[in-house]
Amino acid sequence: MNDLIITLTTDFGEDSPYVAAMKGVILHGNPRARIVDLSHQIPPQDLWHTAYFLANSILFFPPEVIHVVVVDPGVGSERALLCVELNDGQLLLVPDNGCWTQLASNPTMVRRLANPIYWHKPVSSTFHGRDILAPVAAALSTGLAKPKDLGPVVSEWVQLRIPQPILTTTLLSGQIVFVDRFGNLISNIPVHLIENAIQAWGVRPARLAIGDQVVTRLVETYAEAEPGTLVALFSSSGRLEFAVVEGNAAQRLNVRAGTAVTLTVEN
Amino acid sequence: MNDLIITLTTDFGEDSPYVAAMKGVILHGNPRARIVDLSHQIPPQDLWHTAYFLANSILFFPPEVIHVVVVDPGVGSERALLCVELNDGQLLLVPDNGCWTQLASNPTMVRRLANPIYWHKPVSSTFHGRDILAPVAAALSTGLAKPKDLGPVVSEWVQLRIPQPILTTTLLSGQIVFVDRFGNLISNIPVHLIENAIQAWGVRPARLAIGDQVVTRLVETYAEAEPGTLVALFSSSGRLEFAVVEGNAAQRLNVRAGTAVTLTVEN
Amino acid sequence: MNDLIITLTTDFGEDSPYVAAMKGVILHGNPRARIVDLSHQIPPQDLWHTAYFLANSILFFPPEVIHVVVVDPGVGSERALLCVELNDGQLLLVPDNGCWTQLASNPTMVRRLANPIYWHKPVSSTFHGRDILAPVAAALSTGLAKPKDLGPVVSEWVQLRIPQPILTTTLLSGQIVFVDRFGNLISNIPVHLIENAIQAWGVRPARLAIGDQVVTRLVETYAEAEPGTLVALFSSSGRLEFAVVEGNAAQRLNVRAGTAVTLTVEN
Repeated sequence: MNDLIITLTTDFGEDSPYVAAMKGVILHGNPRARIVDLSHQIPPQDLWHTAYFLANSILFFPPEVIHVVVVDPGVGSERALLCVELNDGQLLLVPDNGCWTQLASNPTMVRRLANPIYWHKPVSSTFHGRDILAPVAAALSTGLAKPKDLGPVVSEWVQLRIPQPILTTTLLSGQIVFVDRFGNLISNIPVHLIENAIQAWGVRPARLAIGDQVVTRLVETYAEAEPGTLVALFSSSGRLEFAVVEGNAAQRLNVRAGTAVTLTVEN
Repeated sequence: MNDLIITLTTDFGEDSPYVAAMKGVILHGNPRARIVDLSHQIPPQDLWHTAYFLANSILFFPPEVIHVVVVDPGVGSERALLCVELNDGQLLLVPDNGCWTQLASNPTMVRRLANPIYWHKPVSSTFHGRDILAPVAAALSTGLAKPKDLGPVVSEWVQLRIPQPILTTTLLSGQIVFVDRFGNLISNIPVHLIENAIQAWGVRPARLAIGDQVVTRLVETYAEAEPGTLVALFSSSGRLEFAVVEGNAAQRLNVRAGTAVTLTVEN
Repeated sequence: MNDLIITLTTDFGEDSPYVAAMKGVILHGNPRARIVDLSHQIPPQDLWHTAYFLANSILFFPPEVIHVVVVDPGVGSERALLCVELNDGQLLLVPDNGCWTQLASNPTMVRRLANPIYWHKPVSSTFHGRDILAPVAAALSTGLAKPKDLGPVVSEWVQLRIPQPILTTTLLSGQIVFVDRFGNLISNIPVHLIENAIQAWGVRPARLAIGDQVVTRLVETYAEAEPGTLVALFSSSGRLEFAVVEGNAAQRLNVRAGTAVTLTVEN
């Protein structure tokens, strides 16, 4: 149990020494820790991006993995740092800014980090990833610390208000929540909600649009349509997605996160 | 044998959750797998870039390493996924798009992935890296699966038409196939082909050019010429390369992959 | 002792096969080596950036870690490659270009790599990271080689002239030495030097400026001031730092490394 996996997700980029310093602290605390990089390219201080990132990656990991997340616009303020136990036994060490709540709406246990015995002293006011989260992750990975040793159980934490789709008698409306490197546009509308809407309406939607752009081609996979075609399909996370085959939908449509997506009964 | 190395080479970038999801699936299948990142910065869907990347890195690895490659413009189409056994015992898990054929022109065995028992269900239509290649890599790394369990042996696969240099009685002509971060321009002309040409011609070439730009300075290493000098030399992979000493040849010459490189007998 | 940690710090970027080739060579030499990426995004051939990076990360690591650093503008010239033993038992394998001297002003032992027995042959003239440093790191990590086997002890090496702050009877003057991804501007003025200055002057400084821009707000942490405020604070490395709360100071002030920072007794 002393070669547990510790993953890192940060917005530090990779030219600064911040990620390297955290890895040093972790390996100082547990030379057998197995560090796995998830990303250091989260856009700076972007909690929505972090929320999407975590919700679509963490649940694939096995029990006992310790995930350290440092996207922390409130560093040095009174914001808490949390240890979150997921239902499957994974642990998150994360600032209390809501970036994890979409991932785990019903965690087993949440504690506030309060016991400085495991921290790297002196604790700076601007780099709690290095001075608190990294050494705590190392202590958990060796078994030196158990979650119960870290601080008191809390029952309230910051919730990030993730935009939810809206279903009416004539409309299903959501928005783009993620744009990937290929320019694919991923919405917050899951496949089952479209099925629900069709059942409620009694008809299939007559019009699908992203912003003002009507999308007429629904496919199962990118390769189904001609290169250059704008298509709608279901993403690998089961959400309505827009793509240009062998192209970049975000550039073509000039769309970013936040753009409305609508399915309407009437044309 | 349950802590085998699994490498990852993708065009996913690092701000999306795709790489993290694949790592989760691999570690779920084999918590002892040792994941090594080769690159997640392959230019999107660029098979030529991938071919150069693999041809200049994979052969340095030891036997038993499992390489997962996800540059996959045809995901969801009828294109196959392959398990390729290299002569030295390394394994590649890779889409059948030719990105690996420059690396291994004569593999020991090639199989088409067909046995869904090792896959992550449900298999999405847009993310076979996560749903097929990652869990298969994990199963191979634990010994749960052997290559022969994955699917039938195949004898044909897509070949990427890598541009080959041309040698005539007066000309040796190739092209730039890779531009690195320093702006160094690497051609497809190996040193031995230049030796062959000189022998065939009976004279040394009178003129060396990249596009229209004549290059007069041939060096053994960057440091040999003054800063700012355009030089030709042999790359670390034994190919004719162009560089600007302490500068960026790609920017200076406005050259990219595909630009012609010519050695001619007459001036 | 055969699963030692080997870290990599390079300016190779991640789209080229160079990092992957080095990892292959390391794992070929020691399949049990645990490779940890520190950065491959050092700006090309930027020794000052490298110096700052190493000085703010390496000392957090535990003993016995082997750090391979490949920022090497002089590759192929007569510049030496060094094995540096730090006081705590860590090892650096690094070109003799001064990038490490800020980190370790008084190393235990420095040797020049001279024994080709551990090298990857043939040694190219442009990629000593792959052909010399990587296989030497692998040999050290298995115990096949000891530092004393690598080459002769040397007593002189290149020193990078890191700019030092200047203290006069009316002025403390330094400069910005690092700009991070958030646009935070980190100077070379440590907190203790400001305390010394105040003691020497007998008064607190009346004016703090970065370039021509006077900074009036001194805080302990970013969150202390309103969003958009330009603040001075102490960085996580104990240096005077400038930031814009929830903003980007480098962009706002159009400042980069080298800009003067001054504290003056008179206004």
